[in-house]
Amino acid sequence: MSVYDEILPSLITATPAAGRELAIKIARKTIAAIQPDADIRTKLRPDYAEDTSKLMQAGQIVAIEFQTIAAANNYWRK
Amino acid sequence: MSVYDEILPSLITATPAAGRELAIKIARKTIAAIQPDADIRTKLRPDYAEDTSKLMQAGQIVAIEFQTIAAANNYWRK
Amino acid sequence: MSVYDEILPSLITATPAAGRELAIKIARKTIAAIQPDADIRTKLRPDYAEDTSKLMQAGQIVAIEFQTIAAANNYWRK
Amino acid sequence: MSVYDEILPSLITATPAAGRELAIKIARKTIAAIQPDADIRTKLRPDYAEDTSKLMQAGQIVAIEFQTIAAANNYWRK
Amino acid sequence: MSVYDEILPSLITATPAAGRELAIKIARKTIAAIQPDADIRTKLRPDYAEDTSKLMQAGQIVAIEFQTIAAANNYWRK
Amino acid sequence: MSVYDEILPSLITATPAAGRELAIKIARKTIAAIQPDADIRTKLRPDYAEDTSKLMQAGQIVAIEFQTIAAANNYWRK
Repeated sequence: MSVYDEILPSLITATPAAGRELAIKIARKTIAAIQPDADIRTKLRPDYAEDTSKLMQAGQIVAIEFQTIAAANNYWRK
Repeated sequence: MSVYDEILPSLITATPAAGRELAIKIARKTIAAIQPDADIRTKLRPDYAEDTSKLMQAGQIVAIEFQTIAAANNYWRK
Repeated sequence: MSVYDEILPSLITATPAAGRELAIKIARKTIAAIQPDADIRTKLRPDYAEDTSKLMQAGQIVAIEFQTIAAANNYWRK
Repeated sequence: MSVYDEILPSLITATPAAGRELAIKIARKTIAAIQPDADIRTKLRPDYAEDTSKLMQAGQIVAIEFQTIAAANNYWRK
Repeated sequence: MSVYDEILPSLITATPAAGRELAIKIARKTIAAIQPDADIRTKLRPDYAEDTSKLMQAGQIVAIEFQTIAAANNYWRK
Repeated sequence: MSVYDEILPSLITATPAAGRELAIKIARKTIAAIQPDADIRTKLRPDYAEDTSKLMQAGQIVAIEFQTIAAANNYWRK
């Protein structure tokens, strides 16, 4: 059993936009895998929600996850 | 529905310059996906607009996003 | 003999979810390879468990490890 | 119209050295795209010009941009 | 003559685990190439050995080095 | 004319060890391209020579540059 089973049956998505959404989902799920306590994660939200550097730190993780998903989908080339 | 639907119908762009612009757009849209409140994002602008390290943090995200877009466009090779 | 022998016989996994789990395992095992003292690692847990930036730092390492594992598994394409 | 139009007609360069120069140019142009005010950018120069960590932060962005340009040029293989 | 000659005759290893060990070795050897004084490096050990963020900084370098080694070994695919 | 002309006629090296040395050279040359004043760069040496996080920051840049060089040399596969 993995915390990812539900959200990550596959890396394949219909569109680049769906690929971005999957990138955000797996990035978030990874934080949950490292810190399983949902209350703590909720408590931490204000700590990054208005912190530019931490928002960009999250943005960079999504960019790296998206690299993987985009390659998996052969960049959704027609 | 995704916040990316409008800006990311495809990773394919006509030119490298357009690819860079798309990289900036999706990097910005990702911050918006993480912090949906536009007023907060506007309020945060001064926090990075004159901070070298945070400007470069943004620059690095764009460089990573551009890697993906450039590969998607086969580096716009003739 | 390597600390990785037990967890890393191969990069090949049955599913993307299993690939994510392997990414987390090898990221953790690398911290153990650098700091072999399990008591120290346990003592350090509170230092990152409720620290957004450090949780995301861990999330980024997993994203990079997963890039490698996903490429190894040819993105689990059917 | 893009701020990159002038400097980025193509990712193809004659030599690796020219590829490095292009990497520096597009990294700098991205900071300009994020902070368009040239006076502010000039004012910020002293903040990183003698700061090792910020100089290396810039160096890492150039390394990432160069990865993309080198791949685009098939590593200038004969 | 290079500090790497002894540890890096090749990027090819028998197993993924050996690939990880090589990644750690070349990451460490690079710190030695930048700071050749072994006494200083030994003196610095306590500074990161119990610092989560610095342990993870090291973990990320190993993850990047491993990407290169894994690609070199075609991911040890049978 | 580029600061890289002398050190970067090509990305091709005879061995992985030579590839690492080239990675260190181009990383250093990039800092010089951003901060051309050699006296300032010499003055900055103590600031990172005994700072673990900055030594690792340099190590990560070398790891990224080496990724590019290793790919350029087809991983020195026989």
